[in-house]
Amino acid sequence: MNQEKMNDLKNWMNTEGIELTYISDPGHIAYFSGYESDPHERVLALFIPLNHEPFLFTPALEIEDAENSSWSYPVYGYLDSENPWQKIADLIQQQGIPKKIATEKEALTVARYDILTQYFTNSDFSANVTPVIEKLQLQKTPDEISKLMAAGDWADVALEIGFKAIAAGVKEQEILAEIEYQLKRKGVRSMSFDTLVLTGKNAASPHGAPGNTAVADGDLVLFDLGVVWNGYCSDVTRTVAYKEPTDFQKEIYNIVLEAQLKAMDAVKPGITAGELDEVARDVISGYGYGEYFNHRLGHGIGTTVHEYPSLITGNDLVIEEGMCFSIEPGIYIPGKVGVRIEDCLHVTKNGCEAFTKTSKDLLVLH
Amino acid sequence: MNQEKMNDLKNWMNTEGIELTYISDPGHIAYFSGYESDPHERVLALFIPLNHEPFLFTPALEIEDAENSSWSYPVYGYLDSENPWQKIADLIQQQGIPKKIATEKEALTVARYDILTQYFTNSDFSANVTPVIEKLQLQKTPDEISKLMAAGDWADVALEIGFKAIAAGVKEQEILAEIEYQLKRKGVRSMSFDTLVLTGKNAASPHGAPGNTAVADGDLVLFDLGVVWNGYCSDVTRTVAYKEPTDFQKEIYNIVLEAQLKAMDAVKPGITAGELDEVARDVISGYGYGEYFNHRLGHGIGTTVHEYPSLITGNDLVIEEGMCFSIEPGIYIPGKVGVRIEDCLHVTKNGCEAFTKTSKDLLVLH
Repeated sequence: MNQEKMNDLKNWMNTEGIELTYISDPGHIAYFSGYESDPHERVLALFIPLNHEPFLFTPALEIEDAENSSWSYPVYGYLDSENPWQKIADLIQQQGIPKKIATEKEALTVARYDILTQYFTNSDFSANVTPVIEKLQLQKTPDEISKLMAAGDWADVALEIGFKAIAAGVKEQEILAEIEYQLKRKGVRSMSFDTLVLTGKNAASPHGAPGNTAVADGDLVLFDLGVVWNGYCSDVTRTVAYKEPTDFQKEIYNIVLEAQLKAMDAVKPGITAGELDEVARDVISGYGYGEYFNHRLGHGIGTTVHEYPSLITGNDLVIEEGMCFSIEPGIYIPGKVGVRIEDCLHVTKNGCEAFTKTSKDLLVLH
Repeated sequence: MNQEKMNDLKNWMNTEGIELTYISDPGHIAYFSGYESDPHERVLALFIPLNHEPFLFTPALEIEDAENSSWSYPVYGYLDSENPWQKIADLIQQQGIPKKIATEKEALTVARYDILTQYFTNSDFSANVTPVIEKLQLQKTPDEISKLMAAGDWADVALEIGFKAIAAGVKEQEILAEIEYQLKRKGVRSMSFDTLVLTGKNAASPHGAPGNTAVADGDLVLFDLGVVWNGYCSDVTRTVAYKEPTDFQKEIYNIVLEAQLKAMDAVKPGITAGELDEVARDVISGYGYGEYFNHRLGHGIGTTVHEYPSLITGNDLVIEEGMCFSIEPGIYIPGKVGVRIEDCLHVTKNGCEAFTKTSKDLLVLH
């Protein structure tokens, strides 16, 4: 449970005259309440009233788990045979009908919004709390940073397992199975996204899916992976060579590395998210490969693997101490080569510190 | 790509006078287009106009993958630096401004709905396509059933691996790691949800998370798992005994088994979803354990692991041939015992056929 951030949220509510905030994004619920759950199509909700106790609302079968989490306020539940919205409306009305209710417009579905507003026809639903939560999440507390650091340590472990699993004839799918197997045996409950192991030409598809392709001599092998640890995510990418790389592969690798290092060097309070993207993009464009860097430089990371801020040219957001995000330039030339190098980091007083420590010198495996 | 179901959708559009349908749920996009992707916070959309060619809209870095999928109509993309909604609006307007646009109100966020409606202020957005898609998905085609059958085969393989991994002192986490490792090595790309292996008292939490608890003599061990195979999901639960179970454990197991078998026997066209739930619930209540069966009997399955219909008392939906869903009664007595037995099945002319074949006699491992 993050009481400090709930207080920050209440300060915003107080300023805006909002009497109730309804949080529906499972990642955001975990962020405030400490209770992690994927409700699928069932209803999971966190209600934070300005002047009453907050409460969690979960499917009945999750009540016990929610109560055993770090959440220390009430948990209410509903059976599959009950109408969750009627129960929610009753619980809210017991505290008095709120005049202004903030919802997560970037997480709440139109259908659920329509139902809820019908229960409170005289309330003002204009406030959108999503950007407020994104801003609260932007600057991580020291406790959050230590959790991200721990998640990063696991990502380094994962890479090491992956590198060891590389050999001629071993398939992408087998390498990723080995990584996840070793991690899960060590107690890592889940990856923060589907692990990517892409070899040779497959790495030229930045979001391709690992399959039956086997590692062959002269391949570059791209790993993009992360874990969830204590509710916080890691995300790292390394590209390694199996057997001696060609001069062309080395050239591409070194350009991406230069872009990644220059962008990391540029990170400090005061620069904008857009300027960081430009630093990396200028390096790659300067070598004539700009068109092959077809995604943004990075994204925020925290309780979810993709959050605010977005590091993309044009984003004027000013970087501040405590922000956490990825720096992940890449070059993808279809049918030829794909290289991406990524670390997530937190911004310090004068620069930054990466959560992952695996070397970025081109590793050549034999 | 599922042209037949797209045609069914167009028939509905024609009847309702809807000129454009915007599909935003990634599972539903995969269902129609054959292209599977998790777009995270990026925009992935499928547009089906009544009188023009349908098109997929993806992040730029996914265009190639989308084009290489079974989707045979155009794919358009956007760069992270571009405004996807402007591009979408332009693409739609090239076909003429639709008077009536259907959206997925149960998948689309309020924020995205607000943006889209602002581009088409004169269009009518009242139609909700979610229930229409849910109904289309209710009755599976023979091709879909064969894919669900294949996904079920993998679930049986997974259970067999899990049963073999059970031994005194082996932790829940190690058993699930072994299952996923073996499956991934065999080419299964992803599980359809987080694999559950819960031993002893932990099994009494129906959605608990596996951890460091080791299997001990006299434990019941609950497995709930499934895979995604060719875009279709499986989902199965078995509870097995490690060493000789007590009479009480056997009693609870046999009640759940009786409920599961009676409900399976009752499945045939003409019965309602609610009546099926009652069949199982009556068995468990008859033995005095009704309060410990605290979830619905089952849920639909297809390209997603939880879809329409919901098997819960009160649901009047009439079961028809081709529908696919789970039958999964359970008894969870906190601190004491947890048993669930689940198969997913398709409804046949006179009954049903399960996708999973693993025996339901209480397996006692030594």
